[in-house]
Amino acid sequence: MEEQSTPIKATITPFQTKTIRCIVKLGGAAITCKSELETVNEENLNIVSTQLRQMMFSGSDSGKVPGMDWSKRPGMSETPSINDEYCDQFNLDPEKFIIVHGAGSFGHFQASKSGVHKGGLSQPLVKAGFVATRISVTSLNHEIVRALAKEGIPSIGMSPFSCGWSTSKRNMEAADVTMVVKALESGFVPVLHGDAVLDTSQGCTILSGDVIIRYLAAELKPEFVVFLTDVLGVYDRPPTEPGAVLLREIAVHEDGSWSVVNPIIQDAKNQVVVTVAAHDTTGGMVTKISEAAMIAKLGIDVYIVKAATEQSKTALSGHLKHNVPESWLGTIIRLVR
Amino acid sequence: MEEQSTPIKATITPFQTKTIRCIVKLGGAAITCKSELETVNEENLNIVSTQLRQMMFSGSDSGKVPGMDWSKRPGMSETPSINDEYCDQFNLDPEKFIIVHGAGSFGHFQASKSGVHKGGLSQPLVKAGFVATRISVTSLNHEIVRALAKEGIPSIGMSPFSCGWSTSKRNMEAADVTMVVKALESGFVPVLHGDAVLDTSQGCTILSGDVIIRYLAAELKPEFVVFLTDVLGVYDRPPTEPGAVLLREIAVHEDGSWSVVNPIIQDAKNQVVVTVAAHDTTGGMVTKISEAAMIAKLGIDVYIVKAATEQSKTALSGHLKHNVPESWLGTIIRLVR
Repeated sequence: MEEQSTPIKATITPFQTKTIRCIVKLGGAAITCKSELETVNEENLNIVSTQLRQMMFSGSDSGKVPGMDWSKRPGMSETPSINDEYCDQFNLDPEKFIIVHGAGSFGHFQASKSGVHKGGLSQPLVKAGFVATRISVTSLNHEIVRALAKEGIPSIGMSPFSCGWSTSKRNMEAADVTMVVKALESGFVPVLHGDAVLDTSQGCTILSGDVIIRYLAAELKPEFVVFLTDVLGVYDRPPTEPGAVLLREIAVHEDGSWSVVNPIIQDAKNQVVVTVAAHDTTGGMVTKISEAAMIAKLGIDVYIVKAATEQSKTALSGHLKHNVPESWLGTIIRLVR
Repeated sequence: MEEQSTPIKATITPFQTKTIRCIVKLGGAAITCKSELETVNEENLNIVSTQLRQMMFSGSDSGKVPGMDWSKRPGMSETPSINDEYCDQFNLDPEKFIIVHGAGSFGHFQASKSGVHKGGLSQPLVKAGFVATRISVTSLNHEIVRALAKEGIPSIGMSPFSCGWSTSKRNMEAADVTMVVKALESGFVPVLHGDAVLDTSQGCTILSGDVIIRYLAAELKPEFVVFLTDVLGVYDRPPTEPGAVLLREIAVHEDGSWSVVNPIIQDAKNQVVVTVAAHDTTGGMVTKISEAAMIAKLGIDVYIVKAATEQSKTALSGHLKHNVPESWLGTIIRLVR
């Protein structure tokens, strides 16, 4: 939600033994119904979960999987049935993925009503809003963890607040990734989220999913990062405007500057800034490109793609690193040396 | 759930500036319906929440409070209404309480079905059970945080797993209380729970709420500890047996041994061990007395009392430290020097 520009120190935690395959952002707009308060986009979430499972477990493209959500659901039978032997037929050791999700129609109402991002915990409204925001975003986290677990992904919900992550002047400060790495090493898939956190200078703020991803990417150096969103990728202007052009590839230079290389557009960078900024002041596509460019600068490919499509499946497979099919629609942001 | 006997090193975190008033255990049996899978005992939870609010905010014994759960509830209006000015009439800086809850009818089914407490994450069933257990216990945590927030308590759910707590040979190992203290210092009420955690020797296990409380008590030295349960206190035999006697006071000696001082019973300690062990092998009253005795040995009074009663209200007020009314029913466990 907020852009933060402090340079991030990249240190690899010593006990990390196997490469992180991918960090995936589940965009709030893609997995919730943005216009309906606290409503999950079940259809998208289910497709995304299936695609993720397919990419995490090689060879499990079809067939049954052992569900890991054994909890009651409204309107369903009281006792979930678990077949002990059934589980043991499966390899439940996935490729190392980390999932980070946004808030969508969860949390935003509570946060904006109370101004949590601006801090001031001594004000009762801010304090109440902090509590209310965490209730809402952790509720979404719980739903996502359940959807992934139902699909057979050993997902583990981890709240940045509980992980001890905090900010200073709204910039990431303390963020120990030890527990995220331990969860990965134990064969789990950590599921983090944008969260209300403590801030040493202003009391509290909102730590966005995008900032978390940038931080994790710098710390853990995944092979690639995928942003799943509700449009095909990054456009040169709001995609609903006539003539909007999908930016297929953005090249990031070693000094951190970036330019659109496909399609070739005159003065593309400024054009994007001007047209996008007008409709999205709180961290839309320009923030996304800036965040993504900072990740790409580390040599990590970033794919921005529409969730729950063939395009997202291709992006999650990692094949784009070596070969981008002509038919693939989305935005690739990568370092050129 | 599991008894653990490693001595705990008590170190006060340096930035702790104000005394912790109380650590409260919400027993699983008191706040869930034990015989109905994943069902909260709403009536008890609401009364407990009200009592806690009254004890945390002096002078707010009656009247309206600003609710901090602004999320949708099934069957309720889409948009919660929050009156901005309303909030600001209140002091939302509570006495420092920490809440830890058990699992009751949440988590036990998943944990016992898969044997999470015995470890072995390479077994698919254990791994799936780990995920399923966490889904279930975090779901209860979420319900409790919401109930407390609705009452006006600035509650913050914190999972031991996410906090980075782990065990070694099923004994508490890494347990950084920094984030719990920071939440308290910011005026929040941390709400922790028994959880599935990683174990350095056996892969994973269950960390029980009782062990968490003993650890937190040693680290943070609260004024007193209250266990809210579903019976009046500790009896000399299963309370359903004819002639069962409520143990009103147990004296703990500096060497850690303990004896019943009220009522006076011949050979009471052995009697309790024998009769209780017969009906509860997985950490019932004997474990509870042992855990409580270890806390009392630190000079911290422990009250075991029936939840949602006048007795629990008295216990939570802390008045028992100075004066135990003749009419009060419950078990006091305290150090005698």
